[in-house]
Amino acid sequence: MPSQTRDRILDTTAELFRRQGYSATGMKQIAAEAAAPFGSLYHFFPGGKEDLGAHTILTSGRLYTRMFAEIAMQAPDMLSAVAAFFSGAAETLVETGYADACPIATVALEVSSTNEQLRLATAEVFTEWIDGASAWFGSAGIAPERSRELAFVMLNLLEGAFVFARSLRSTEPLEHAGRAAVGEVARALEEAGA
Amino acid sequence: MPSQTRDRILDTTAELFRRQGYSATGMKQIAAEAAAPFGSLYHFFPGGKEDLGAHTILTSGRLYTRMFAEIAMQAPDMLSAVAAFFSGAAETLVETGYADACPIATVALEVSSTNEQLRLATAEVFTEWIDGASAWFGSAGIAPERSRELAFVMLNLLEGAFVFARSLRSTEPLEHAGRAAVGEVARALEEAGA
Repeated sequence: MPSQTRDRILDTTAELFRRQGYSATGMKQIAAEAAAPFGSLYHFFPGGKEDLGAHTILTSGRLYTRMFAEIAMQAPDMLSAVAAFFSGAAETLVETGYADACPIATVALEVSSTNEQLRLATAEVFTEWIDGASAWFGSAGIAPERSRELAFVMLNLLEGAFVFARSLRSTEPLEHAGRAAVGEVARALEEAGA
Repeated sequence: MPSQTRDRILDTTAELFRRQGYSATGMKQIAAEAAAPFGSLYHFFPGGKEDLGAHTILTSGRLYTRMFAEIAMQAPDMLSAVAAFFSGAAETLVETGYADACPIATVALEVSSTNEQLRLATAEVFTEWIDGASAWFGSAGIAPERSRELAFVMLNLLEGAFVFARSLRSTEPLEHAGRAAVGEVARALEEAGA
C-alpha cells in the first residue's frame, strides 16, 4: 500500500481529533473518512488506535511547529509575527465554522490522566513548541529564563483562547489574547534593549 | 429517590469529565462510581447522557463561579486574589496527580463542533465567568472594555496553562500564567489610577 494512504489516514485522524477529540473517534470512522481499507489502518499502525493516535499527535505537532516558523519568517518583525499567530488562528477558526483549532489540546486534556503513551506524545509536542518559541525569543536578545516564560505565556494564551473561542463561536478571546501576547513580548524586547 | 443521589451523580460526572472528558464517560461508569442505581440516572435526567452532561456543566460552572468569588473575598486585595487563583489551581493539580483542573474545558473542546446542546451549556458557563470577572475588575475602577479584556486574558491564561500543566505534569505553566495575569491586572489598575 502506498504511503499516500498512510498520510491520508494521519490527516483524517488529525482532523477528527481537532473536531471531536480522541475518545469519540473510532477506527471505522477514520477508515471511512480517509477512504482507506480498514485493514490498512492496522497495517500502518499495528498498535491500533493508540498507535495511530500517538503518530497523529507527533505528526500534527511538527506540522504546527513548521507553520509557526513559516509565519515568523514571513513577518517583518517579531511583534508582527506574534500578532499573526493569533489573527491567523482566528481566521482559520472562522473559515472552518469554529472547528479547527489546536490538533493536540483536546486529546491532551482527554488522555492526560488516562493514557500514559498518548500523554507522553502530547508532552513531546508541547515541549518542542515551548523550546522552539523560547529559542526564537532568545534570538532577539531576550534572556533564556524570560524567553521561556514568554513562550509559556504566549502558548497559554493561544490554547486558552481556543477553548473560549470554540465554545462561544467568537474570535473575541483570540483578539484579547493576541493583544496581551504582543504587549508581553514588546515589554520583554524593551527590557532586553532590543 | 433522595436528591442526595442526584447530587452524587452530578459530582461523579463532573469528576469523570475533568479526568477523562465527555466521550469516554459512560452512564454505566457514572452509576457505578456514584453508587447509584442505573435507573436513577434516567429518573433524574430523562434525556440521558446529554441531559446529565448539560446539568453537570452548568452545576460545575456555578460551583467554580462561587469558588472564585470566595477566593477574591478572602484575599487582601485584587492582585493577591489573581495570584491565588493560579497558585490554588496549581496546588489542586499537584494534590490530584494532575487530574483535576477545569471541569468544563475538556468537554467544551470535545463538543463544540459536535453537540449544540452541550456547546451552549459550556458557552453559558463561560459567559458567566467572563461577565463575573469583568464586573469584579470594574469594581476596582477599571473601564468596562478594559475589564472585559482582562477577564478574557486571565481566563485564557488559566485554561491554556491547564492544558500544558496536565500534559507536562508540571506547575510551571501555571506559574508563568499567574505572573502574566497579575502583571496585566496591575497595569490596568495603574492606568485606572486605582
